[in-house]
Amino acid sequence: MMKENELINVITQSLNSEYIGDDCAYLKDLNIVVSQDNLVENVHFSKETMTPYQLGYKATMVNLSDIAASGAIPKYLTIGLSLPVGDNKNFIDDFYSGCKEALKTTEAEIVGGDITGSDRIFISICAIGKTEGRKISSRSNAKVGQKIITSGFHGSSAAGLKILQENLEPDTNLIKAHLMPIAQLEFAGNISSQIDEEYAMMDTSDGLFDALFKIGERSNCKMAVDFERIMYDHKIQQYFEQTYKDLIFFGGEDYQIIATVPVEFLPKLNNQYTIIGDVLEKTEDTIVEINFEDSSDKFSEMSTKCFNHFPD
Amino acid sequence: MMKENELINVITQSLNSEYIGDDCAYLKDLNIVVSQDNLVENVHFSKETMTPYQLGYKATMVNLSDIAASGAIPKYLTIGLSLPVGDNKNFIDDFYSGCKEALKTTEAEIVGGDITGSDRIFISICAIGKTEGRKISSRSNAKVGQKIITSGFHGSSAAGLKILQENLEPDTNLIKAHLMPIAQLEFAGNISSQIDEEYAMMDTSDGLFDALFKIGERSNCKMAVDFERIMYDHKIQQYFEQTYKDLIFFGGEDYQIIATVPVEFLPKLNNQYTIIGDVLEKTEDTIVEINFEDSSDKFSEMSTKCFNHFPD
Repeated sequence: MMKENELINVITQSLNSEYIGDDCAYLKDLNIVVSQDNLVENVHFSKETMTPYQLGYKATMVNLSDIAASGAIPKYLTIGLSLPVGDNKNFIDDFYSGCKEALKTTEAEIVGGDITGSDRIFISICAIGKTEGRKISSRSNAKVGQKIITSGFHGSSAAGLKILQENLEPDTNLIKAHLMPIAQLEFAGNISSQIDEEYAMMDTSDGLFDALFKIGERSNCKMAVDFERIMYDHKIQQYFEQTYKDLIFFGGEDYQIIATVPVEFLPKLNNQYTIIGDVLEKTEDTIVEINFEDSSDKFSEMSTKCFNHFPD
Repeated sequence: MMKENELINVITQSLNSEYIGDDCAYLKDLNIVVSQDNLVENVHFSKETMTPYQLGYKATMVNLSDIAASGAIPKYLTIGLSLPVGDNKNFIDDFYSGCKEALKTTEAEIVGGDITGSDRIFISICAIGKTEGRKISSRSNAKVGQKIITSGFHGSSAAGLKILQENLEPDTNLIKAHLMPIAQLEFAGNISSQIDEEYAMMDTSDGLFDALFKIGERSNCKMAVDFERIMYDHKIQQYFEQTYKDLIFFGGEDYQIIATVPVEFLPKLNNQYTIIGDVLEKTEDTIVEINFEDSSDKFSEMSTKCFNHFPD
């Protein structure tokens, strides 16, 4: 089977489109960005671990995060929902309640979509963001000398999922981070509404390392990060002493924001950020470099992995 | 199981949104319309009767037709594709070739989407249309006194499908009408770019009768149609003598356009239309009235059905 990255390459070649590459397409003539996400039962979620309410909430939040990470203001969503026959009314009521909960503190609303039958649940959400008054980001816009900043804790969602899957003693914050993540609209908007320079921005839907790698690869830079500056909930270390760094780097679904911005821009953010590293000239093939204070760190295996390889 | 109409009512109540009702949502502040369609393997299509190329073509055309029927100009599409593991590269190449074929004579392009795994094929296409210079239609805009006009042949797609399903002697035009329908962008654009009055417009994706019924119901009018004025390929009658009127009224997937416009507007259309009836005051509960020249017509059963009932 081809990996998602390879499939996207096939599509990109087939379409020869300037738009494909970021999570959102920036349609300049209409002053909008647009994103789409598919969620398939038993591939992306399971009815065993998620209620329809949580599913609606998370599916919506994922799309809000995509739009926010582009720099735009989330405005409209359409939801394509395909469902097995059965207790549809309750599913739909709960699902849309979750969607509305996710939209509560935004100016975005659901304006349409499609509903059909299916033998398993399939959800596709399309989100539209307004770009007026915002500078739109791109993965390919990181510049040597910029600071790498991030909006908050990494690894919490993956830790919460592991706690649920392994039936460990529950931790409210970690489980909530997994089931009810919060898109960083304010953090992203504070950057895109004030910055003049080109900048890179992404969410960490596929993990912190993945976001760093994709920005570095597309911008042809090295992303140098100090592990000690990355924020995480220290309970992760208590639960998963052997693997907590893997969770922080590769966990995914935290929907934090990673951005690369000039150091002079930082005062405009009123200390609402964490600097985790620097954008450097690319040396040899290293795209992401993770530095540890203690170089004899027992997680050197991951450290090596991070230096040169894209994780499987 | 609830019907699609009932499910849409649940969603409409849950969302309390002004946007839901037409195939497209009209987002006035952004000068766009947006539509979304889900297509599920073995519900909406089968690999047995459709190639990936035909599937890409038709899925794209369905969305172009939705946008055209709103009156807008189709501009951008995003495609969410979920696929089983296997020969994905060939599927994707063929599918996107079909999409591009459908877009060939338009100014629309594919700008993004999503690709994921799945145990069956699931496609969700989101289309965005530009409303600048166009008057946008609504199902609820039919006015008493307007003429009901349509863009072409009805029933061909359903006849083509029946020919394929029943292994009858092939007819190129009818089979093509089913596999490779053509959205009526020019017909719809000629109306929306020139009309000043409010008007109703829909495509016949769910059949001619369904479009007439939905416009009449939402506009609180009676849609009175003369059967003899409806255009159809007379080969349908040769193939399906007993049921050809059913195919014409209930067949679906012809993607013709139905519109209600003032009689004074018609000269602007340069005879590129067929008048099939009139929008009348609603009398009793009749929403669609089909009149036959020969009232002793042997299809009186359908005639009765059309007078008062919404078909199952």
